[in-house]
Amino acid sequence: MTDELLLQCRKSQAMVLTLCLIGVLLVSSAEAVVHNLTWEISYQYKYLDCYKKLSVAINGMTPGPEISAAEGDTIIVNVINNLLMENVAIHWHGIRQIGSQWSDGTDGVTQCATMPGDTFTYQFVVDKAGTYMYHSHYGMQREAGLYGMIKVSPRAGESEPFTYDGEHSIVLSDWYHSSPYEQATNLTSIPYQWIGEPQSLLINGRGKYDCANLDATVCNATNPECLRSNFTVSPGLTYRLRIASLTSLSALSFQIEGHNMTVVEADGNYVAPFATQNLYIYSGETYSVLITANQSSSRNYWITTNVVSRKPATPVGSAILNYIPNHSGDDPSTIPPPGPLWNDTESRKAQSASIKAEKDHIQSPPSTSDKTILLLNTQNTFQGRTVWSLNNVSHSLPDTPYLIALKKNWTDVFDQAPAPESYDQGYDIYSVANNTNAISSTSIYRLTFNSTVDVILQNANTMTKNDSETHPWHLHGHDFWVLGYGDDKFNLSTDGQKFNLVNPIMKNTVPLHPYGWTALRFRADNPGVWIFHCHIEPHFLLGMTVLFESGSEMVADPPQQNMGCGKTKSLIMQQPSSVSP
Amino acid sequence: MTDELLLQCRKSQAMVLTLCLIGVLLVSSAEAVVHNLTWEISYQYKYLDCYKKLSVAINGMTPGPEISAAEGDTIIVNVINNLLMENVAIHWHGIRQIGSQWSDGTDGVTQCATMPGDTFTYQFVVDKAGTYMYHSHYGMQREAGLYGMIKVSPRAGESEPFTYDGEHSIVLSDWYHSSPYEQATNLTSIPYQWIGEPQSLLINGRGKYDCANLDATVCNATNPECLRSNFTVSPGLTYRLRIASLTSLSALSFQIEGHNMTVVEADGNYVAPFATQNLYIYSGETYSVLITANQSSSRNYWITTNVVSRKPATPVGSAILNYIPNHSGDDPSTIPPPGPLWNDTESRKAQSASIKAEKDHIQSPPSTSDKTILLLNTQNTFQGRTVWSLNNVSHSLPDTPYLIALKKNWTDVFDQAPAPESYDQGYDIYSVANNTNAISSTSIYRLTFNSTVDVILQNANTMTKNDSETHPWHLHGHDFWVLGYGDDKFNLSTDGQKFNLVNPIMKNTVPLHPYGWTALRFRADNPGVWIFHCHIEPHFLLGMTVLFESGSEMVADPPQQNMGCGKTKSLIMQQPSSVSP
Repeated sequence: MTDELLLQCRKSQAMVLTLCLIGVLLVSSAEAVVHNLTWEISYQYKYLDCYKKLSVAINGMTPGPEISAAEGDTIIVNVINNLLMENVAIHWHGIRQIGSQWSDGTDGVTQCATMPGDTFTYQFVVDKAGTYMYHSHYGMQREAGLYGMIKVSPRAGESEPFTYDGEHSIVLSDWYHSSPYEQATNLTSIPYQWIGEPQSLLINGRGKYDCANLDATVCNATNPECLRSNFTVSPGLTYRLRIASLTSLSALSFQIEGHNMTVVEADGNYVAPFATQNLYIYSGETYSVLITANQSSSRNYWITTNVVSRKPATPVGSAILNYIPNHSGDDPSTIPPPGPLWNDTESRKAQSASIKAEKDHIQSPPSTSDKTILLLNTQNTFQGRTVWSLNNVSHSLPDTPYLIALKKNWTDVFDQAPAPESYDQGYDIYSVANNTNAISSTSIYRLTFNSTVDVILQNANTMTKNDSETHPWHLHGHDFWVLGYGDDKFNLSTDGQKFNLVNPIMKNTVPLHPYGWTALRFRADNPGVWIFHCHIEPHFLLGMTVLFESGSEMVADPPQQNMGCGKTKSLIMQQPSSVSP
Repeated sequence: MTDELLLQCRKSQAMVLTLCLIGVLLVSSAEAVVHNLTWEISYQYKYLDCYKKLSVAINGMTPGPEISAAEGDTIIVNVINNLLMENVAIHWHGIRQIGSQWSDGTDGVTQCATMPGDTFTYQFVVDKAGTYMYHSHYGMQREAGLYGMIKVSPRAGESEPFTYDGEHSIVLSDWYHSSPYEQATNLTSIPYQWIGEPQSLLINGRGKYDCANLDATVCNATNPECLRSNFTVSPGLTYRLRIASLTSLSALSFQIEGHNMTVVEADGNYVAPFATQNLYIYSGETYSVLITANQSSSRNYWITTNVVSRKPATPVGSAILNYIPNHSGDDPSTIPPPGPLWNDTESRKAQSASIKAEKDHIQSPPSTSDKTILLLNTQNTFQGRTVWSLNNVSHSLPDTPYLIALKKNWTDVFDQAPAPESYDQGYDIYSVANNTNAISSTSIYRLTFNSTVDVILQNANTMTKNDSETHPWHLHGHDFWVLGYGDDKFNLSTDGQKFNLVNPIMKNTVPLHPYGWTALRFRADNPGVWIFHCHIEPHFLLGMTVLFESGSEMVADPPQQNMGCGKTKSLIMQQPSSVSP
């Protein structure tokens, strides 16, 4: 808000400039604000990529509205479920929910999903400036478009380690024409039916599917809903682009024809600036990049995003960088930049490794950890189904949310045996996975409160020869330090020595690259039970999840609105019906 | 069971006949049985009409398994919801649920829908021999295939007023390729988007969509799931066909090439037998007909069903009457009977009027009623949406089930003002409906317990010129006497004189014919709150519903499993969390 006002001031006539700046100061010094939002969730037909698809909308919008607030503000969202027969739960991705664990919005963990006709009120403080997002955390509902951006500006009077003249929000997503139900049915069928690559990539909910040979009632290339997004810039000014990836499946590269990007923020943490032509971004990540509109204003420029890490079958997604005075958002006559090769893994690993904390915003990690958990990521077969496992355990969510079960001391809700903290060190990560002893479990990791925990994500070959995928792992309730990435199998004695303890970036989502490892450290300092999972929607569905509990005894009792499913029904009072007054 | 055994006995060699009949007697004299069923509800891809569609299945089957029991048996169905993100509720259509109101399975009335991962246990007694069915009673879920037949044979030692050598069950339905979510989104959109006619008619879940020009992965004419159903008969024997219609939209005619049918049962009540070539059957109705395999056994015969009342855009559905020894189920070389003209309304009205109680099974109605409720059926516009109304009220279900609200004396759950018992008698039923003062309400009719109530359903013109539809009205919790049908506007003083009080059939579902009226009488002798609604799924969704309450104070307190939604969450105890043992 302040930045936008400043930009407006710059554009003002000199005679009103002083008045304008006073206005900005008044806004800047305002107290923390309570944003009280009411969202009605419904199904709507959308033509996001010109193809007609039933989408989940918030107040009619897919993607949903952006939440814009300042550090310290309180966000209240009254979510009214009007989905006819389908429940809903919304997660506020990147918001740590300190003191508001019951608003994490994670079905099976912090709440029962909200039934049609019911309302759930989420309330939390956005306690750290940065770029975040929200999305459904229920079944595969996110795939249907229930997501959007959360933009948090610094607290009044505080500044960021970079400046800019204006900003734009850019939500990247991939788009399937099949429904979450169709996808989940395929993914859980015996034999396994892979859902294939998405049909389109969307930039702020707009893509271009090829409507040739399709009836105009099904696919309409001229539908205004699929007009390319365009982002207007004034020559010479510098812009912050807040970029979030909410893809269901795809890892992406993002680029702007003729413009370098300087990465300055990642997942709400300031990054030691570095320039790049291609921003790699994985599902669940956010970045801010700065661009300067320093090219000829006689034309517009392509913005593109393309699939990496998987062999693409999805066309490049595109939008327009619209130079003033080219207000019309015309397509450039140039060829859109195709982005890097999908299998240029080294380039992706290099970018991951180059993301460090900005020098004045380094939060030093504890020098040692109290516990190290190794997580071997494998694809397995379990009871005929193809699943994903950690240390041979494919996770399933219990019918009763974990945090409620823990508060109520219900030991029959989930497997009380601890989840395995390591795997057979003789495992060959280059062999085709054939873990015939994989199991399905609801078990969790219980961590000492305030202890420091290292997690070493270890990649491996899938069930396909010479194939190892990229998994973006997302932790709820915490940021973690990214201590390092490496190839091959992690060696605790030697690789641990190379951890970056000087200026590691903190993030909430981090990629695990093919045949490699990623090392994280976090303080278990947020009471509750928090899910840590691959942010690829099909992988999450198929068990690529673990849970970390610590200090849950300090969490307040569960609110009524979080209950209604599973064993929580046993808490419904059986007193006799009241009599008429 | 007994009939099938008898049939087997007849086919037995003489030397084992005596032994066989002893076995039948043993079975016949068995005590009432408890049938404990476990049903897992899931989405599955089915090719019911050769076209691939995501369907709701019970233990993998769409339609679901037949429930076969004897009068007095107890049915327990443990319904496990594995629908990923969608809730479920199952209604036992025609079962009056005497003493088991909480098992009626009606979302918004007797229960909160059951969430994914949860189990709901329905328990009820099948207290009357006859043909019934079950189906989803939640949103538009029935459209996705969640339905099946309930067959109740007479109590041991009791006989029916007809005999037969064998029997077959025939579930008729229509089939859309769109999902319930797509349909509901269209139907509730502004402007109104009509969903069109179904793509296929199914006989026991099998139809034939024209796969020409479609990819074999989408439509496969040779998929075994869409092989025509065939019903095997032995020459000279007589068969009972139990026929149920679970269509979403369509009124049907049903016929068997070269064979007359004798109607002997309707909705679980014995009918004074009459012969017909075409059985008209409306959604929510069941009939038993007798046929004798008295045609040449040198070939098979077509069974067909076709749309009536609406101008058809759906091909005739077909199955095979397979004469022994023609075991292969070969298609006859003849042309399938097309059925009667869709707009032969007189023929349909004549058949409705000809259905009377079998002479030895007449249950005489009370000679007078304590109350008469007139219900004018109109299509209206309400807040830009196209809806259906009764006396200008388009019904909406509350978020908290009625019966729970009544038991808890929650007066804020639904509109406490009584629903209107009549309409403006000056209303011209032939004019295009333009009831600009239509309202939406949750109001109900509260009836004196054990009182006798007449309901006069009055049809009218829709919002389309010269159009009046057929509405099959279904009452939960009761059978009613069908006192008469008539054309034009019902005249209380003259038409009431013509009521059939001598041998009216009792039914639970009855058609209201175009521009006509239908008169019912029932005893409000089943404590609870019961829904009475048009059984056309889109009409139900759009408000064509009323509620009758009587004696709900006699109903037991709501079980925990029926709760979890709306205001029932306020009953969740807020006691402090338990401590570890």
